[in-house]
Amino acid sequence: MVYLDNASSSFPVHKSICDEMDRINRLLPAAAGYDYHYARLTMQLIEDARQKAAQFMHINNVNRVIFTASATDAANRILGGMDWHSGDVVFVSPYEHNCVLRPLNRLKDMYGIRICELPLHDNLELNLDRLKALFSENKPRLVCCTYVSSVTGYILPIKDIINEAKNAGSRVLVDASLSVGLIDIETDDVDFLVFSGHKSIGGPVGAGCMILGRGVLPDAYISGDTMSDSSDLCMPKALPARYEPGCLNVSAVAGLGRAIDYIFQEGIKKLYTKNKALTDLLVKELSSIERVRVYIPENREKHLSIVSFNIEGLTCDECAYLLDRHYDIAVKSGLHGAALTHKYLSDEDFNGTVRAGIGLFTTQKDIEELVCAVRNIAASL
Amino acid sequence: MVYLDNASSSFPVHKSICDEMDRINRLLPAAAGYDYHYARLTMQLIEDARQKAAQFMHINNVNRVIFTASATDAANRILGGMDWHSGDVVFVSPYEHNCVLRPLNRLKDMYGIRICELPLHDNLELNLDRLKALFSENKPRLVCCTYVSSVTGYILPIKDIINEAKNAGSRVLVDASLSVGLIDIETDDVDFLVFSGHKSIGGPVGAGCMILGRGVLPDAYISGDTMSDSSDLCMPKALPARYEPGCLNVSAVAGLGRAIDYIFQEGIKKLYTKNKALTDLLVKELSSIERVRVYIPENREKHLSIVSFNIEGLTCDECAYLLDRHYDIAVKSGLHGAALTHKYLSDEDFNGTVRAGIGLFTTQKDIEELVCAVRNIAASL
Repeated sequence: MVYLDNASSSFPVHKSICDEMDRINRLLPAAAGYDYHYARLTMQLIEDARQKAAQFMHINNVNRVIFTASATDAANRILGGMDWHSGDVVFVSPYEHNCVLRPLNRLKDMYGIRICELPLHDNLELNLDRLKALFSENKPRLVCCTYVSSVTGYILPIKDIINEAKNAGSRVLVDASLSVGLIDIETDDVDFLVFSGHKSIGGPVGAGCMILGRGVLPDAYISGDTMSDSSDLCMPKALPARYEPGCLNVSAVAGLGRAIDYIFQEGIKKLYTKNKALTDLLVKELSSIERVRVYIPENREKHLSIVSFNIEGLTCDECAYLLDRHYDIAVKSGLHGAALTHKYLSDEDFNGTVRAGIGLFTTQKDIEELVCAVRNIAASL
Repeated sequence: MVYLDNASSSFPVHKSICDEMDRINRLLPAAAGYDYHYARLTMQLIEDARQKAAQFMHINNVNRVIFTASATDAANRILGGMDWHSGDVVFVSPYEHNCVLRPLNRLKDMYGIRICELPLHDNLELNLDRLKALFSENKPRLVCCTYVSSVTGYILPIKDIINEAKNAGSRVLVDASLSVGLIDIETDDVDFLVFSGHKSIGGPVGAGCMILGRGVLPDAYISGDTMSDSSDLCMPKALPARYEPGCLNVSAVAGLGRAIDYIFQEGIKKLYTKNKALTDLLVKELSSIERVRVYIPENREKHLSIVSFNIEGLTCDECAYLLDRHYDIAVKSGLHGAALTHKYLSDEDFNGTVRAGIGLFTTQKDIEELVCAVRNIAASL
């Protein structure tokens, strides 16, 4: 199989991660705590992973790193835990994923918040001038912004958005699921950042991260038992306990820690450079094929890891089917969880896009095989 | 190590479960879907586990089995997804866990619901006569009831409670985390049932289950992307998609499926009988030791799997510390996530109880070692 669905889930999971998870599953009870030797070992594994994640995300206060089951879990908890009032304005980029859009839509129904969309230029890049105007017209309480688009691979101008949001007195939620491990981020100015453990960072499914900035903390949207203060009917105020009820998935959390080790070991710049070279190669080759449309931002410096395309004459599902059936190539077809993006792509006739997601272990040969297959399919139509 | 903290997390996890999880982590991408061979395999693994869970729980409609990250996750989603109004009455047994109590307490603050406690007899059993009277005085909207107490191992009279709740027009939420795999349950009459994958059922941490009965479904408290209908800002109405946003932890879900295989293979009655014999042995032996207090229901038929005790002259933490330090025995000390229970135990001077939780792989030798250690400690005081 040529696996190019790394934007859904990174694969393969590095041997060091699988080994560590397997070791833990076989040798350690899952309940962390103080009561006995193995509970302390389990707790230590979780705290080691927290230290690594804090170092990785440049956070001084390690307890502001919260482990969750997924990025979806983390985003729901932040959005659901905020103190909403009718008329509160939330801005979203058109690149947001359903893990942000759907919880917001529920809050709209429940509290009457207003969801406003940030505009793009024709070249698929964010229109920062309009953004400023919109922020002054409708003072936002929250701005939600993914770092790398799950559809076009566009690297959003996070720093500019954060600055403008701060100027407007707004808080910011960044979804870094597809940038973490490829692009370094200073999380100092971010109020909330979430990422999945099994996308660009290359860890296992079952662990995600929620980074809480310096500002006011959300209410505990999910609550349950904690190692301390069990007699209190409220979650403890202390971090990270406040947001980590129940039993953490220690093997997945430790696996995420190992994924961070791997990124440190390889170096984030090297991983970016490798990914960028493969991304650019794929764009260049696909763009040269007749009948193929590629959906990427105009400025090639703002593009990474994900290449969406279509072949004229095929829906995206048909194209993915042919790639799977005849070439054993795994890509994803559809809206990629981000429906708002597609109105800028004019891809209705294709029912969305075919998406190739480049991962940590994607090779030039993988890219060449995809290109060859697309060329064959396009030529056969 | 003598491991007797199975009520926190079952250990060891059976080899067949670890093997399957390891296989999946190494060989299969985690994203389930229709697009390519391996995504379909992943989807099939999840649906196989769902079939097994449905069969195991006697449910005709397999899609009413929802996989969650944990029982805590499941309980929060049910409670948070209900349509609450000020003054709504929720009854809880004094055996409820913080995974139910803490979310309810939040709902109390948010919506002004009233939380009422079901009363116990002096023998630590539920007072069903008073329950009937209370239900007629304060018509409940929901009754929350754990099946087996995490503190005393008391098997609550679930069927009676469900009948009385139905008569009062109330819905019922059962937490079966400590009964599933030991006691069969007909889920037909239960509106909501949750269980953890890593407690009495013996599966891995990282997967839980939420069973939805025939009644009205809760709102999707956690939302995100789904394999279908990505363009809709609401979660799809169809089950199970409505409650399974994002990427499921396929290895944990398949591991839970394997745990169910193991229960089927061994037979639930055999597992009950074995557990009951060890529980009774432990009670008998501990009760014979001077200075030892055991906290169990009077009727021995209503007791399973969990034995709470204290040694006069030691706090529960001191006792657990000595068992760990000098005897390498893993037990838990404290409130065991269920603070309400303890006012019936008069265990304030001990700061809670020492809890031995008997698991699938506990042996008579484990019990004997614990008894011997407790006898030594008690004699040394």
